[in-house]
Amino acid sequence: MKDFVLHPRLAADCFVLGQFDFSLLLLMNNSLVPWFILVPRTSVQELFELDDNDLATLLVEIKTVSDYVKQNFNVSKLNVAAIGNVVSQLHVHIVGRDPSDYCWPGVVWGAEGKKEYSENQVKEICTALSANLGGKFMKMFP
Amino acid sequence: MKDFVLHPRLAADCFVLGQFDFSLLLLMNNSLVPWFILVPRTSVQELFELDDNDLATLLVEIKTVSDYVKQNFNVSKLNVAAIGNVVSQLHVHIVGRDPSDYCWPGVVWGAEGKKEYSENQVKEICTALSANLGGKFMKMFP
Repeated sequence: MKDFVLHPRLAADCFVLGQFDFSLLLLMNNSLVPWFILVPRTSVQELFELDDNDLATLLVEIKTVSDYVKQNFNVSKLNVAAIGNVVSQLHVHIVGRDPSDYCWPGVVWGAEGKKEYSENQVKEICTALSANLGGKFMKMFP
Repeated sequence: MKDFVLHPRLAADCFVLGQFDFSLLLLMNNSLVPWFILVPRTSVQELFELDDNDLATLLVEIKTVSDYVKQNFNVSKLNVAAIGNVVSQLHVHIVGRDPSDYCWPGVVWGAEGKKEYSENQVKEICTALSANLGGKFMKMFP
């Protein structure tokens, strides 16, 4: 989508790691859990208002990130959610969760607790992701 | 799945309204928001560990319920989420949300506030759903 602009709240809270065919991949700036967000470049606000092609593409991207989180972080459960009460721009959370994490078994949305990443940590995550995902992911983080 | 048993926590918290081809449809016993839950009859625990056919079927069922909620309740946003930190049996929340509701813009998971349905209210919801969805939904609520 030519006129796509990332919502300023997402831009403020997250790092833009890169992009897939359809979605930007963000990392929430909270190192307490691996918390990724896919933002498809669309003006549609509800997951199930996407047309079939776009939905299929987004699902492949969610699956790619889900698999990556499950395999590369110490997590026992994934939380996958499209909420959008605060930021109506369509975005899908993919959060790796574990009984040892800061707010288990509660959800991360609205939970207190935050530890910011250092720039180096984000670089490492982005480089590892890029190496693992290959051509389907285009790295954008400096 | 022959040996499928609904998790006792879901059975205690929700009404079983009926079933689609793949999933049971539950209604969370909290009339403060329209809060439906699809429970696919599978032992797989993560959305993206379903095989392609099962995932496609589940997505159609999520879309069906999403459309129904958007069109038949006074809501401005849908929250669609697979969480499963407390109940690991795969289940997908479809919650109709509105700025006028009891915990907006927070999420419903973990929010305080509950108003139980009367049996008649549940019957009405189930009958309306059944009339709207036709043959793809099999009503189970008495």
